[in-house]
Amino acid sequence: MAEEAISNKRVMFKNYVTGFPKESDMELVTSSTKLNIAEGTKDAVLVKNLYLSCDPYMRSRMSKFDTLTITSSFQPGKPVGGFGVVKVLDSTHPNYKKGDLAWGITEWEEYSLIVSPQLLIKIPHTDLPLSYYTGILGMPGITAYAGFHEVCSPKKGEFVYISAASGAVGQLVGQFAKLFGCYVVGSAGSKEKVDLLKNKFGFDEAFNYKEEPDLNAALKRYFPEGIDIYFENVGGKMLDAVLLNMRVRGRIAVCGMISQYNLDKPEGVHNLTSIIYKRVRIEGFLANDFYHLYPKFLEMVIPYIKEGKIVYVEDVAEGLENAPTSLIGLFHGRNVGKQVVAVARE
Amino acid sequence: MAEEAISNKRVMFKNYVTGFPKESDMELVTSSTKLNIAEGTKDAVLVKNLYLSCDPYMRSRMSKFDTLTITSSFQPGKPVGGFGVVKVLDSTHPNYKKGDLAWGITEWEEYSLIVSPQLLIKIPHTDLPLSYYTGILGMPGITAYAGFHEVCSPKKGEFVYISAASGAVGQLVGQFAKLFGCYVVGSAGSKEKVDLLKNKFGFDEAFNYKEEPDLNAALKRYFPEGIDIYFENVGGKMLDAVLLNMRVRGRIAVCGMISQYNLDKPEGVHNLTSIIYKRVRIEGFLANDFYHLYPKFLEMVIPYIKEGKIVYVEDVAEGLENAPTSLIGLFHGRNVGKQVVAVARE
Repeated sequence: MAEEAISNKRVMFKNYVTGFPKESDMELVTSSTKLNIAEGTKDAVLVKNLYLSCDPYMRSRMSKFDTLTITSSFQPGKPVGGFGVVKVLDSTHPNYKKGDLAWGITEWEEYSLIVSPQLLIKIPHTDLPLSYYTGILGMPGITAYAGFHEVCSPKKGEFVYISAASGAVGQLVGQFAKLFGCYVVGSAGSKEKVDLLKNKFGFDEAFNYKEEPDLNAALKRYFPEGIDIYFENVGGKMLDAVLLNMRVRGRIAVCGMISQYNLDKPEGVHNLTSIIYKRVRIEGFLANDFYHLYPKFLEMVIPYIKEGKIVYVEDVAEGLENAPTSLIGLFHGRNVGKQVVAVARE
Repeated sequence: MAEEAISNKRVMFKNYVTGFPKESDMELVTSSTKLNIAEGTKDAVLVKNLYLSCDPYMRSRMSKFDTLTITSSFQPGKPVGGFGVVKVLDSTHPNYKKGDLAWGITEWEEYSLIVSPQLLIKIPHTDLPLSYYTGILGMPGITAYAGFHEVCSPKKGEFVYISAASGAVGQLVGQFAKLFGCYVVGSAGSKEKVDLLKNKFGFDEAFNYKEEPDLNAALKRYFPEGIDIYFENVGGKMLDAVLLNMRVRGRIAVCGMISQYNLDKPEGVHNLTSIIYKRVRIEGFLANDFYHLYPKFLEMVIPYIKEGKIVYVEDVAEGLENAPTSLIGLFHGRNVGKQVVAVARE
């Protein structure tokens, strides 16, 4: 075991953010670490971070006193944290040994000492891409699966609309809904993404919301009979337009509202009165509440991946130094598919 | 049976309304009618209207092309319509005979020919006030009962907040919630109403929202641990403040949004992002979906009324000529309790 110190690149959080985050809110530093756990440190694992996940919810951790979050704010002067895929280099935890792979909460650096390994989930050695555990086989996968099957209460043949539909979660919701027998329309912010939705993910229809001056009219065009299920990823004006197009007893599963996270004051939503007469249910949810379904989810999704019945598109940035740009890009829709940062490939 | 024509006062709807309705949007006219059903008219009942109900939802029927309603718009030149308590004078329907009492959809006039008596529900002869069938024993009663017990999914000890709490529905929700074992706070728009909430309906706390410059601060004062259940009657700024004070897995049952009905553009609600992290459910509902529970509801509520465990406050206007003022008054909060119009007392 290497006792000598080794260099450890880290992405540090500089200070709390208001408005859109910038790359300069983070800083790449190089410190050093040892690749073994100090004597006396119990129940810890020392890991090499292989893949790091850029997720929209991380914006909330960049604000101070954000009472909306269930996690804590990032600490200025400490590394950014989030989901990742890790390889165990050393362990004093009975469940982990050197060479194990896992996914869960880690920090944005090359090597991390994880003192709460109960937040990690072990990865079996398979021939699936390890990066998938930041996406389809990780938190976004459970989010899409539980959000659609549990929160949306879908019925065959229903009309499903998904915003931010080519993202880490949206692309899966659309594919799950198609496999379930629904009619699925998605929106995204570029021609490239719309093409993916139609040609790669098998959505029935897709449109570029940036090219629609009247979102209400666009939705009426794609859903002449109205929307049964809206999988909400964006909020604001899109939600307002959707509310005008919901069917009686429609359901809106609120996974995220990325269009609102960087505004000083969120946009107003004006059409909520329509939920009364239409008996619409709007429900916020978090993947955290559905981890008990993870084994069942894997059992369903892994064969689908192997048979090519579900595909997953990732946008992989190479190297920890590109992590800040990748995270910032999420809030400008620059990612095409799930945004991942590859720190190391072994 | 009187074959000669008798005078029939009627409240006619003049034209579609934008903004706040005015008394001049309705017109009192006197026509004549016969008190028997013309030969050949099958399955009809001719009724004397005893009590007419003023309900906030009626505002939607005063607008044209309101896609939000499940009922049709009022027809200009025809009488205003709504819930009422009626006495059968003549019947060609097998279920009804002269002298029967019923409640349901009728028109704003002294005598009505009802050609769809399937929309009526028979009233047994009891010693309860007949006007109660426009309120606690009618549509508002089912609304409160189903809204609280079915839509809110209450648990004992939960923190319940009710806006427009002294109204036809709110006063009942509060009393049902207290009987169920919840902590109940209500808001209303005058000292008199707040006194009713605390001293007559047994709410734990109550406040006058017009005296609260900061609704968020007011709610934090009354709910230091947050709100589990919000029974929504008003919408707009109140909903926005409530969203900041909901507890994890809180429920918002949307019964009405009376503050929004008369606005050209409804106010924006800005704090919806908070429903994600708190996993809040917001659900619109209508009494219509719960009429199957009506017998069970009566079985519960009638003994409570007789034992004095539930009280009901009505604001009764005397005479059909006062019906327009009574309806308009709803939208200015002038009613204290359920607004009823007594057309005739027998």
